[in-house]
Amino acid sequence: MSEFSTAAVYRARQAPARAHYDHAMAHAILDEGLVAHVAFASEAGPVALPMFYVRDGDRVLIHASRKSRLMRALIEGASLCLTVTLVDGLVMARSAFHHSMNYRSVMVHGRGTCLPSAEKEAALALFVERVQAGRSAEVRAPNAQELKATDVLAIPLVDVVAKMRTGGPLDDAEDMALPVWAGVVPIESAYGTPIDA
Amino acid sequence: MSEFSTAAVYRARQAPARAHYDHAMAHAILDEGLVAHVAFASEAGPVALPMFYVRDGDRVLIHASRKSRLMRALIEGASLCLTVTLVDGLVMARSAFHHSMNYRSVMVHGRGTCLPSAEKEAALALFVERVQAGRSAEVRAPNAQELKATDVLAIPLVDVVAKMRTGGPLDDAEDMALPVWAGVVPIESAYGTPIDA
Repeated sequence: MSEFSTAAVYRARQAPARAHYDHAMAHAILDEGLVAHVAFASEAGPVALPMFYVRDGDRVLIHASRKSRLMRALIEGASLCLTVTLVDGLVMARSAFHHSMNYRSVMVHGRGTCLPSAEKEAALALFVERVQAGRSAEVRAPNAQELKATDVLAIPLVDVVAKMRTGGPLDDAEDMALPVWAGVVPIESAYGTPIDA
Repeated sequence: MSEFSTAAVYRARQAPARAHYDHAMAHAILDEGLVAHVAFASEAGPVALPMFYVRDGDRVLIHASRKSRLMRALIEGASLCLTVTLVDGLVMARSAFHHSMNYRSVMVHGRGTCLPSAEKEAALALFVERVQAGRSAEVRAPNAQELKATDVLAIPLVDVVAKMRTGGPLDDAEDMALPVWAGVVPIESAYGTPIDA
């Protein structure tokens, strides 16, 4: 099982037992999520921007309009943190303090680099493939103007931390007999019936 | 309909037609979400941290272990951006370029202030009430040590932007006859069958 060589400064110190550095887990979480929150320092202070993304091997791709004021910092190579979080359940304990959530998350620290024009079209096809395999060959491909209007940033998967909590509540021994329901309420996300345009 | 007095620097410039500043919409989105991503400048650069939160009138509350290295910046009043995003559907267009997502999001810029000890217990009860109404009266309340270990930060809902995309794909007129399915694939999130501890 190959591992990320995540720098010490980015490794988890809170709840380190929940942190994982193997490629397989991080890749699986990234491949299940649809939206990442990308944090960076904008002119107006820190921003957490929700963005569609796709994993491409050992990097994550995001795309954005070249006109976007917020994206300019990222395009210029600002330091960023990209986080994907999947919420799996509410953990209901016998004490208020031990309530928790089951979740899986990946945090990537790094900088994006703009893909050169020659690589953009293939990269953008991956975003369409992410929502439906085979679809990029069916839809109208981007024209020159659309390609020009869109930048694709690649963020290398180097400084990566996956975190995961699973299982039931961890109550204190003296609370185990309290007459209150304890357990996990799963949260499930699914695709509904497609709506024709 | 009362509106946020969001400062110009935080107002949406990309897709401004999708931006909303009324209290009702932002409150509804915040009340539906469970996890916010909080962006701030940490010692190691920008961070987007997933956090459980609860809305309490015209403020959002987050809580954290006092020992958390990452939280220290927030506890000390660092500038932050708290974003909640609900993903409602995949928007499948006839052209690659017009693929999109239906979503609702709220972005709050501001700073957190630590609640004084006297207000902490009532605030923490709101987190338990958020997962199940009435539950805070049933579970064991936090003891002195637990209260001391936890800080609650209140972030005022002042500089707030809600954004929303709904409806089908917006294809170009010349693509409307292409033989490819177009429409919306809804994404639905639901609670599953509770699992007893």
